[in-house]
Amino acid sequence: MSDAKVCVVVGVGPGLGEALARTFAREGWRVAVMARSVDKVRALADDIGGLAVPCDATDNDAIRQAFATVREQLGPVHTLLWNVGSGVFGDLDKVDVAGMELAWRTNALGLFVAAKEVVGDMRAAGEGNLVVTGATASRRGKPFTTAFAAGKAAQRSLCQSLARQLWPEGIHVALVVVDGGIRPADTDRPPETMLAPADIATTALHLARQPRSAWTFELEVRPHVESW
Amino acid sequence: MSDAKVCVVVGVGPGLGEALARTFAREGWRVAVMARSVDKVRALADDIGGLAVPCDATDNDAIRQAFATVREQLGPVHTLLWNVGSGVFGDLDKVDVAGMELAWRTNALGLFVAAKEVVGDMRAAGEGNLVVTGATASRRGKPFTTAFAAGKAAQRSLCQSLARQLWPEGIHVALVVVDGGIRPADTDRPPETMLAPADIATTALHLARQPRSAWTFELEVRPHVESW
Amino acid sequence: MSDAKVCVVVGVGPGLGEALARTFAREGWRVAVMARSVDKVRALADDIGGLAVPCDATDNDAIRQAFATVREQLGPVHTLLWNVGSGVFGDLDKVDVAGMELAWRTNALGLFVAAKEVVGDMRAAGEGNLVVTGATASRRGKPFTTAFAAGKAAQRSLCQSLARQLWPEGIHVALVVVDGGIRPADTDRPPETMLAPADIATTALHLARQPRSAWTFELEVRPHVESW
Amino acid sequence: MSDAKVCVVVGVGPGLGEALARTFAREGWRVAVMARSVDKVRALADDIGGLAVPCDATDNDAIRQAFATVREQLGPVHTLLWNVGSGVFGDLDKVDVAGMELAWRTNALGLFVAAKEVVGDMRAAGEGNLVVTGATASRRGKPFTTAFAAGKAAQRSLCQSLARQLWPEGIHVALVVVDGGIRPADTDRPPETMLAPADIATTALHLARQPRSAWTFELEVRPHVESW
Repeated sequence: MSDAKVCVVVGVGPGLGEALARTFAREGWRVAVMARSVDKVRALADDIGGLAVPCDATDNDAIRQAFATVREQLGPVHTLLWNVGSGVFGDLDKVDVAGMELAWRTNALGLFVAAKEVVGDMRAAGEGNLVVTGATASRRGKPFTTAFAAGKAAQRSLCQSLARQLWPEGIHVALVVVDGGIRPADTDRPPETMLAPADIATTALHLARQPRSAWTFELEVRPHVESW
Repeated sequence: MSDAKVCVVVGVGPGLGEALARTFAREGWRVAVMARSVDKVRALADDIGGLAVPCDATDNDAIRQAFATVREQLGPVHTLLWNVGSGVFGDLDKVDVAGMELAWRTNALGLFVAAKEVVGDMRAAGEGNLVVTGATASRRGKPFTTAFAAGKAAQRSLCQSLARQLWPEGIHVALVVVDGGIRPADTDRPPETMLAPADIATTALHLARQPRSAWTFELEVRPHVESW
Repeated sequence: MSDAKVCVVVGVGPGLGEALARTFAREGWRVAVMARSVDKVRALADDIGGLAVPCDATDNDAIRQAFATVREQLGPVHTLLWNVGSGVFGDLDKVDVAGMELAWRTNALGLFVAAKEVVGDMRAAGEGNLVVTGATASRRGKPFTTAFAAGKAAQRSLCQSLARQLWPEGIHVALVVVDGGIRPADTDRPPETMLAPADIATTALHLARQPRSAWTFELEVRPHVESW
Repeated sequence: MSDAKVCVVVGVGPGLGEALARTFAREGWRVAVMARSVDKVRALADDIGGLAVPCDATDNDAIRQAFATVREQLGPVHTLLWNVGSGVFGDLDKVDVAGMELAWRTNALGLFVAAKEVVGDMRAAGEGNLVVTGATASRRGKPFTTAFAAGKAAQRSLCQSLARQLWPEGIHVALVVVDGGIRPADTDRPPETMLAPADIATTALHLARQPRSAWTFELEVRPHVESW
């Protein structure tokens, strides 16, 4: 184990998760990237000198196991970036119980389980970060977000509870409300009309570095041309 | 079956659930009362000429069965009053996964399942009500409401999604945010310092009767001396 | 002076103001109607056995004089319905300082002055109502509501401050957030697609009658087909 | 005139205003500091190589004159930091019309006038920042904030309107909600229990530098031990 602080990114795909991992690695964290399929993140992990760990965020035991692996291989967790989110969309008629459960587990329950896993490390260190990727849906439910918004609302509420409990212990819980589409690698839409993953990551990094006298709990990020 | 409109109250104990049942029965609805233990609501059901139906709101199949019973015995459902709510309190260290799941199921998932059960009846009638008993915790998470607030936030979001979908079809989805302690039968605290169940029920009734040109989605009720 | 409780409606035109006046008069209040041009409300006042009082809600002295007249002619004020609202719309480029001032005065400052006028009567009686006609704009500013939303946001904030101060004294301050167009008398738009003034007034009346154990501060009213 | 971008800080005292001025000066902006009494900011202006300009933020003409001076002496305005805020506190009985007007003018109307002054420069440049120092009171009115919260709520609403209008033109309007006491120079309260002005300024700087793909409108800052 090195002396570097350990950052775990849960929910890593080619978009925001990768950008978060690269940004925190570049700034000195030792980064573990978690994804359901570890094959898809191994190249990234190698590239940033990090660790790829399989993790199904809907499976509580799998989450616990994944964090045990991180602690064993890299040491205590300093920063947790929860970037998991379900993509179940549809109204009451279209969504089923499984869709509701998926939204709940990936957004809220899994985060709860992961928070339990890392809070001991952070308390021992007297510091830490827990930055969560939220969504505008957390602030209001629409017909097509019957499942997704419910999960995101539960997530936002959970983050508020965690922040109010853990901030005084030096653990910075924060919520980045993503409002708009995240730019995929292969689009030809004009720049600045979609959220660039690296730009979101820069703001997440700012949160992780705020001094304790002036912490932010919640902020939103959106393209300057977005309608809101 | 009579001609009376059918109202189902889910989550009936001696407090608000009973007051809702009595109020809607008095105003002409045929009322089914659901509780985990049917023995505890049989006397109430007899008293208001209604139906007592067992229902464990954490069990999706039990919910479906309970509504099938109501439809078979009383006819299509006109008004659903969801008054179930978990009492799991505690912070990240005290609450466990089971507590989180209970809050999610009683507040949000069970409501989702019940909504699926009744929406067909209401659509066929071209009208209906779905009034949910919410809580202030739905608007903000505190350390001692890590589980409860997450469930209530998911519930509020779900209600928003349902309202935006179902209002145009004539189904009035509304949320009554209860902010304060509900007065138990046996307290000697001064009147007006706690929420009288019958007074909350009167406001729920007002919602159920609002004409379509001016529907309310959300309101809160609290004692006039409550601090907020 | 009769024994009837006195209700003052400030901001009376042919729409919501008139409906509020007629509703509260029908339910037993003695009603004073205030408008900039008293000629336009004299027929209404006669019709409901009330009093027409001239009042320019942007002029603090005029407000004070109008309430003095009411108290002199009808007695102490029991219920104040503040239904004034500016119609200044436009973005930063279109709105001028006068437009901003108008929104501030009609929505917030005038209400503040009127509240000072009536609070003594209500305290002496140990009860009273102050119900304010709000707008969705109070919850968010859009480019075309640069002035209007700022005034409405100030109004909503003022109502919160007043409610928290005056509720414990038995004075029910409440805010009716009107979300949608109010139906004019001469439209042929289908029923239920616009807010019927009488339906809003019925909900205002419900607020004025809520028992103290379960008061509502804020609710919104909108047509069931409204997009929100 | 130099090539440096021009930043104007309105409302400069020894606390946050000074920290904003020093931070933006250090990062390359040419800074004008505005205060009612120019004598109190001349030393600061000299120290940071900036310009001290007298400005009474309750006087619309004075605001216009102050910005004319800045443009004449430093060139077009690139970044406006509105840090003015009234300190009128008290409930309905204690606050008077003058206190309400002061809160309105310093928080909202003055900002409106200043925005009109700078928007042309920013449009010509195709970029700019307008960062406003808000307060928690903007989100809710309490009895002791009858005036202050109304002014801050109007300010927040105005910022939303401006953001929605001006973001697409490349002008980043943002609101920093200060939640807690700002640390004075001469306190012996433990570090991290009050907001350090320099720490707030760092976050304001982050906002001013966010790339357009991921702009934040609103965030709050508070000490990690603050109760909220």
